[in-house]
Amino acid sequence: MTTARAPRFRAADLTDFAAALFAAAGCDGDKPNAVAVGLLEADLLGHTTHGLQLAPTYIGELESGAMTPRGEPDVVADRGAAVTWDGRRLPGVWLAARAVDLACDRALKFGTATVVVRNSHHIGCLAAFLQRATDRGLMVTIASSDPAVATVAPFGGRTPVFTPDPLAVGIPTSGDPILIDISASITTNGMAARLRREGKRFPGMWARAADGAPTDDPNALFTTPPGTLLPVGGVDHGHKGYGVALIVEALTQGLGGFGRAEKPTRWGGSVFVQVHDPAAFGGAEAFARETSWLAVACRASAPAGAEPVRVPGERGLARKRAALANGVELYAGILDALAPVAARYGVPVPAPLT
Amino acid sequence: MTTARAPRFRAADLTDFAAALFAAAGCDGDKPNAVAVGLLEADLLGHTTHGLQLAPTYIGELESGAMTPRGEPDVVADRGAAVTWDGRRLPGVWLAARAVDLACDRALKFGTATVVVRNSHHIGCLAAFLQRATDRGLMVTIASSDPAVATVAPFGGRTPVFTPDPLAVGIPTSGDPILIDISASITTNGMAARLRREGKRFPGMWARAADGAPTDDPNALFTTPPGTLLPVGGVDHGHKGYGVALIVEALTQGLGGFGRAEKPTRWGGSVFVQVHDPAAFGGAEAFARETSWLAVACRASAPAGAEPVRVPGERGLARKRAALANGVELYAGILDALAPVAARYGVPVPAPLT
Repeated sequence: MTTARAPRFRAADLTDFAAALFAAAGCDGDKPNAVAVGLLEADLLGHTTHGLQLAPTYIGELESGAMTPRGEPDVVADRGAAVTWDGRRLPGVWLAARAVDLACDRALKFGTATVVVRNSHHIGCLAAFLQRATDRGLMVTIASSDPAVATVAPFGGRTPVFTPDPLAVGIPTSGDPILIDISASITTNGMAARLRREGKRFPGMWARAADGAPTDDPNALFTTPPGTLLPVGGVDHGHKGYGVALIVEALTQGLGGFGRAEKPTRWGGSVFVQVHDPAAFGGAEAFARETSWLAVACRASAPAGAEPVRVPGERGLARKRAALANGVELYAGILDALAPVAARYGVPVPAPLT
Repeated sequence: MTTARAPRFRAADLTDFAAALFAAAGCDGDKPNAVAVGLLEADLLGHTTHGLQLAPTYIGELESGAMTPRGEPDVVADRGAAVTWDGRRLPGVWLAARAVDLACDRALKFGTATVVVRNSHHIGCLAAFLQRATDRGLMVTIASSDPAVATVAPFGGRTPVFTPDPLAVGIPTSGDPILIDISASITTNGMAARLRREGKRFPGMWARAADGAPTDDPNALFTTPPGTLLPVGGVDHGHKGYGVALIVEALTQGLGGFGRAEKPTRWGGSVFVQVHDPAAFGGAEAFARETSWLAVACRASAPAGAEPVRVPGERGLARKRAALANGVELYAGILDALAPVAARYGVPVPAPLT
């Protein structure tokens, strides 16, 4: 008797496939490839709600004109270590990758640099961009928010004000980088939608119903009026996550100079990227010594339960290595959702590995 | 029948008193006043575990030679937008205030600037430095850690690796600034010690006993071997606070190039300061429009319980205004603890307002 195994795909085949779709939908230059690479990277790291699952939606946005397919961002300000772009609703995955690359270039010159992108389209999974910086020995912080969407309430409230406001940080060590991907809310909109679709519940009281009662039911987010996602810390100490939300919204929409005050209505993103070059501070070697020490100490912490302590990014990087070596197992349904788009554009769906 | 009221003091009398003690203990130049102002500011804002309560301990550190009383920090690196100091164990409250001021000066020139201080002494309350930047219209992030102390375990572990690793952010608006003061752990060492002293418990399961069991008993931190403080998110989603701890430790000790890898044993601090000048990004006016909108929207969020939603810093600033107008009510016992020190140096204890 054999167990049915999920089909696996060569990573490059999936990237080429998705890139062909974005090109067919009108994206110019390196955008099709950059968006495909960024989405697949999320799948490789295990962030499957923010990988190729987003591709059909992005294509829909391109087709409706809500995502700008071609051209460059406008430079709002450039002070060397501080750069601001208007993203003109260009593909956010492409914009974010370029913003990280620019922030790295500038940090190598100034020691630190900030790049802010307002009016981007959705940027996908923040963790997917971290290794662009850590591979160059740089520490990177990426934050994003969407001023058109509000699903997270301030602590003590039940009217939503924020998006989950993710914050990702890449920290080089002498070995694998530490890849942190957290957010101001306990869980995300994408996870709430997926659990709802699958008839599941949150593992804890991660939301409030519209009347303010804490709940583990993702359906609470989809009532009229809707409930809200709880900030990190939950009902117990959610002022901490509330603080993170305000920080992320100020760094993204505040510095970008465009946000909720303008009441935008279209799905989009505001992006903040900060890069630090350890060589400009206490030295690259000293930095790696400290961060490597931390990684070792965390893994060596006696387990409080059955599982050993992991370092953030460890599991994702292991998944990524295995997928690159043995093929990518996509989360159920992702390729099915892309098939009609592929058929419409006459792009062949990649064959699984045998 | 009258109710006994706690004695109140003129803020300037308390500052002068504490400054006289630090001068008597050997601090030179503007250090006595700067440390006194920084500690009192914490009391004014309500962070009473990190205000004048620390003064007797600081004086003890000066007397034992563990805190350097005189001189300047060494400049390890200066790349304009990126500055690193070795604090030579000088008073951390003074170093942190100067680091914030320098980061502001540099951010006005470069748009953003980072100042890192390694080998500082304890810096007190991070929130006490925020208005130095927000009063100038700048957004500031301050983080600190102490590589000689470990009371917080990584998520899933029970061997401590981190300090609570506070993170404070000041966000200018068109009215009062938003003053955020959070940390990687749910609660702090200072609060654990105070609750233990007072025979109280944490309001939630904020710690682990040495065997890994979640507990609300602050005594668990003082067993042999000791228990640990839980990262933000607690047993439910503590990987979020664990991420914040790694971020703060990398920004402070990693960039500073001095930390746990060197196994320091003396109470001290590593400090990270980042300042952004909104005028160098999307504009100061646009920034204030967005952040003011957020503050209004948060206050307008329908309460989930009985209390209206507050904006971080709101209560502290109200306390501060009242204390400056009507006198400072110190947390019980603070002045009693300072009286013997004052007697030793022949510095008169200030008289309460009548």
